[in-house]
Amino acid sequence: MTVTDLATRTYNHSFRLDPIVRSLLDTDFYKLLMLQLIWSRHANTNVTFSLINRTRTVRLAEVIDEAELREQLDHARTLRFTKKELIWLAGNTFYGVERMFRPDFIAWLARYRLPDYELRRVDGQFELSFTGPWMDVTLWEIPALAIVNELRSRAALRHRGRFALDVLYARAKARLWSKVERLRDLPELALSDFGTRRRHGFLWQRWCVEALKEGLGERLIGTSNVLLAMDADLEAIGTNAHELPMVAAAEAADDAALAHAPYRVLEEWQRDYAGNLLIVLPDTYGTAAFLRDAPDWVADWTGFRPDSLPPIEAGEQIIRWWQDKGRDPRGKLLIFSDGMDVDSIAATYRHFDGRVRMSFGWGTNLTNDFRGCDPEGDAPLAPLSLVCKVTRVNGRSAVKLSDNPAKATGDPAEIARYLRVFGEAGRVDQTVRV
Amino acid sequence: MTVTDLATRTYNHSFRLDPIVRSLLDTDFYKLLMLQLIWSRHANTNVTFSLINRTRTVRLAEVIDEAELREQLDHARTLRFTKKELIWLAGNTFYGVERMFRPDFIAWLARYRLPDYELRRVDGQFELSFTGPWMDVTLWEIPALAIVNELRSRAALRHRGRFALDVLYARAKARLWSKVERLRDLPELALSDFGTRRRHGFLWQRWCVEALKEGLGERLIGTSNVLLAMDADLEAIGTNAHELPMVAAAEAADDAALAHAPYRVLEEWQRDYAGNLLIVLPDTYGTAAFLRDAPDWVADWTGFRPDSLPPIEAGEQIIRWWQDKGRDPRGKLLIFSDGMDVDSIAATYRHFDGRVRMSFGWGTNLTNDFRGCDPEGDAPLAPLSLVCKVTRVNGRSAVKLSDNPAKATGDPAEIARYLRVFGEAGRVDQTVRV
Repeated sequence: MTVTDLATRTYNHSFRLDPIVRSLLDTDFYKLLMLQLIWSRHANTNVTFSLINRTRTVRLAEVIDEAELREQLDHARTLRFTKKELIWLAGNTFYGVERMFRPDFIAWLARYRLPDYELRRVDGQFELSFTGPWMDVTLWEIPALAIVNELRSRAALRHRGRFALDVLYARAKARLWSKVERLRDLPELALSDFGTRRRHGFLWQRWCVEALKEGLGERLIGTSNVLLAMDADLEAIGTNAHELPMVAAAEAADDAALAHAPYRVLEEWQRDYAGNLLIVLPDTYGTAAFLRDAPDWVADWTGFRPDSLPPIEAGEQIIRWWQDKGRDPRGKLLIFSDGMDVDSIAATYRHFDGRVRMSFGWGTNLTNDFRGCDPEGDAPLAPLSLVCKVTRVNGRSAVKLSDNPAKATGDPAEIARYLRVFGEAGRVDQTVRV
Repeated sequence: MTVTDLATRTYNHSFRLDPIVRSLLDTDFYKLLMLQLIWSRHANTNVTFSLINRTRTVRLAEVIDEAELREQLDHARTLRFTKKELIWLAGNTFYGVERMFRPDFIAWLARYRLPDYELRRVDGQFELSFTGPWMDVTLWEIPALAIVNELRSRAALRHRGRFALDVLYARAKARLWSKVERLRDLPELALSDFGTRRRHGFLWQRWCVEALKEGLGERLIGTSNVLLAMDADLEAIGTNAHELPMVAAAEAADDAALAHAPYRVLEEWQRDYAGNLLIVLPDTYGTAAFLRDAPDWVADWTGFRPDSLPPIEAGEQIIRWWQDKGRDPRGKLLIFSDGMDVDSIAATYRHFDGRVRMSFGWGTNLTNDFRGCDPEGDAPLAPLSLVCKVTRVNGRSAVKLSDNPAKATGDPAEIARYLRVFGEAGRVDQTVRV
C-alpha cells in the first residue's frame, strides 16, 4: 500500500529553488580561522578571488545554465549566520581550546553576508570572481566551488530514470563502504573529511561523513565542514591555506620582504593560535626553498601539511629536516590531504607507521568518487580540478609556485620573479587530477 | 512509480525501541531555571515526585503495557545533555539576558542523568514515583508525563488502518489551522506553546509549533520546550512553578514560617533572576490569601501567572490589587496558561485589551486536541488530567491548596493545617479538564 504525503509532494514540486548552500557554516573550518586573523590584522587589504577550472576539457558554461548559477549565488548572498550557529561557534571547544573565536569577531560575523560577484561567460567557461576587502571576499571560496560542482552533478543527472539513479547511488554507497572496510585495517588511522569544496553535492557529503562516523568510529577524527561538525557532533578540523602566504607575498615591498613573507605569516598565526593549529603549509613557493630558509622556531611547530609533492617523498623530506634541526619526528605530526584515496592513505600510513604521527584529510575521493557507478560512463560525474584562488592583492598579481608546476598560478612576469627569489629546487611536475 | 528506500525501511522495522524522549532538552524551560536555583540553594533537600492521574475513569495500567513504559523510562535514563545542547544553553540569550546559566551549573548538567524510578500497578493505575535529592529528581516531571501521554496515544492508534490514520491527522491539522486563523484576528496577541507535558506525541507537538511559527509569525513569542526552541530558533519561554512554594512550605518549621514561605521563594527567585522572569505564581495556597499578605515589593514584579481561577476573574483581582498598591497595570504583565483555548484566549484578550499587558501559554488544547478528529470517537485520544507533582519533602507531605479545591494535593491533616494558616478566601470549585 502506498500513501503519498500530498503536502510535502506539492511543496517539493513548487520549490522556487533547491538551494545548494543553506548555511554560512557550510564551509571549511580553516576559512573561519583564517578569517579571524584577516579581520583582526588585514582589514585594509583588497583582493580578488577567481574561479579557475583547470579541467579545460569540460566546458562548464555549456554544461551549467548561467541563470541557475546566478540564482544559487544570489541565494547564498541572502544567508546570515543564525543565532544558533553563532552560539555554537562562540561556545564550542575547537582542538580542546575554548573561546577560539573572539566575541568582537563573532559580533562582526553576525552582520556578515557574502558580497557581490562578477560573472561572465568566456570561451565556454565561466569567469567568476569576487573583489573587495579580503575579510569580505574570502568566505566565497567554498560556497562558490560547492555551487558550481553540485550544479554540474545536477546537470549530468537531470534526465536519468528513477531506477538508474537508484542504482547509481547504490553503487556509490557500496564503493565508499568498501573503502571504509579497507581503512579499518589501519589500527591507528586518524582520518578527517576534507571534501566540502569538490563534493558531488551536500546531501551526498553528509551521507559520506555519517557513514564514516558509523563505519570508522574513533578513526574518524572529524570533518572540515563546520555545519556537519555541528550537526553530527564531530570535531571541526583545519588550520590554514595558501591564501595567507600568497597575500603576504603580494604585499611584500621588495624581494627581501618577499623571501620573508612565508615566515611572517607563520609569526602572525602563532601569535593568534596555538597547539594543534600550528601546522605549516610549506609548498606555496616550493617546500625545498621553504625548509632551506626557515628559521629554527618553525621546527617547534606541531607539524606540516605537505600539499603538492607525492606524500612519501614530502614526508621524508620534512622528517629529514626535523632531524637536521635536532627534533624527534615521533612527536611531530604530518597531515596528508592532497588528492588522497584509500591506496595512498594505506601506503603512506604503512610507510611512516611508528616514525611520525600522521593524520589524513580525505577530500574529493571521499565525497566525489563515482568511478564505475554511472551506467553512462565516468565522464559526466568525474570530478573537476576546480579551484577558487586569490588572484590579485591591492592591484598586484598573487602568485603560487607550488611543488608542482602544474599547480602554479599568477602573472608570468611575477612567477619569474618569485622563481628568482625562491629558486626551483625540488619542484616536480605531476598530473593534477583533482 | 514507487521506489522504496529499502535500507530505511529495514532500519525502521527493526527498531528495538521508538524512543519518546530523545533529548534531556525535551523539557519545559522553567524546569531548568528552577533547577539552577534548587542546585545552588537546596542541594540537601530530598523529595518525592509522583505521577497522579486525576482522570480516574481511564485505567492507565490497562491501556499501557508496563514493559513498554519501563523501556521508555529506562531509555530516558540513558540520555545525557549533548555537547551541542550545553553550548547552546551556555551561549544562548534568554529573555535578552546572556549567561542565564552559570558555568558551574552547566558543568554539573554535563554529568547529569535522570535517577531511578519506582513503578507499581495498583487498582488499574500506575504508581510511578521518583525519590531522591530535589536537584536530581525534579527533571523527571516532564519526560515522565510526555512518556505516559504518548504511550497512551500509541496504544489508542495501534490497530487503525493506514487511511484512517491519515484522515485522523488531516482532521487534526485542519482543526489546529482553523484556530490559527481565529487567533490572527487578535492584532497584539503574544502566544507561547506550553504543551510539552500533555502532548499527543513529540512529532505532533513539533508540527503544531512549526505551524504556529508559519501561521502566527511575530504573534508566536516562543515555546516552553527547550529542544524545539533550539531547533526552530524560537525563544524559550517560562519562569517558575508550584514546586518551589510547595517545597518551601513543607520545609517551614512552624505556622509562621509556613505563612511566609510563598514570599521567601520569591525573595530567592529575585536574587537569582530579573526582568521578565519576575512573574508571580500566586495560587499555590489561594490567590486571595497570597495578595492579602504579600509584602509591598511583590507589586514591583513584572507580572503574575494566575493558574487556577477563571482567567478574567483572576486578572481583575490582580489588577485591583496593583491599583490598591498604587501601581499602573498598563505596565504590568498577566500570563494566562491554565487550560486555555482559542475561545478563552480571545475572550480574555478582548476583556483586558489596553488595560494590562498579556501573554498566553497554550498547552494541552494546542498539542493534544483531537476532538472531532477520530472516526472512533473522542474518548481514546481525549487528554488526561495527568500531573507529576512533588508529594513529599524530607519525609513530610507536600501540599497544594490552589484556588480550585479540585486541584488540591497533600495529606488531609496537612491540608487542614494549611487552610488554617492561609484561609479559604476566594477558592472556587471548577471541573478540571486538563
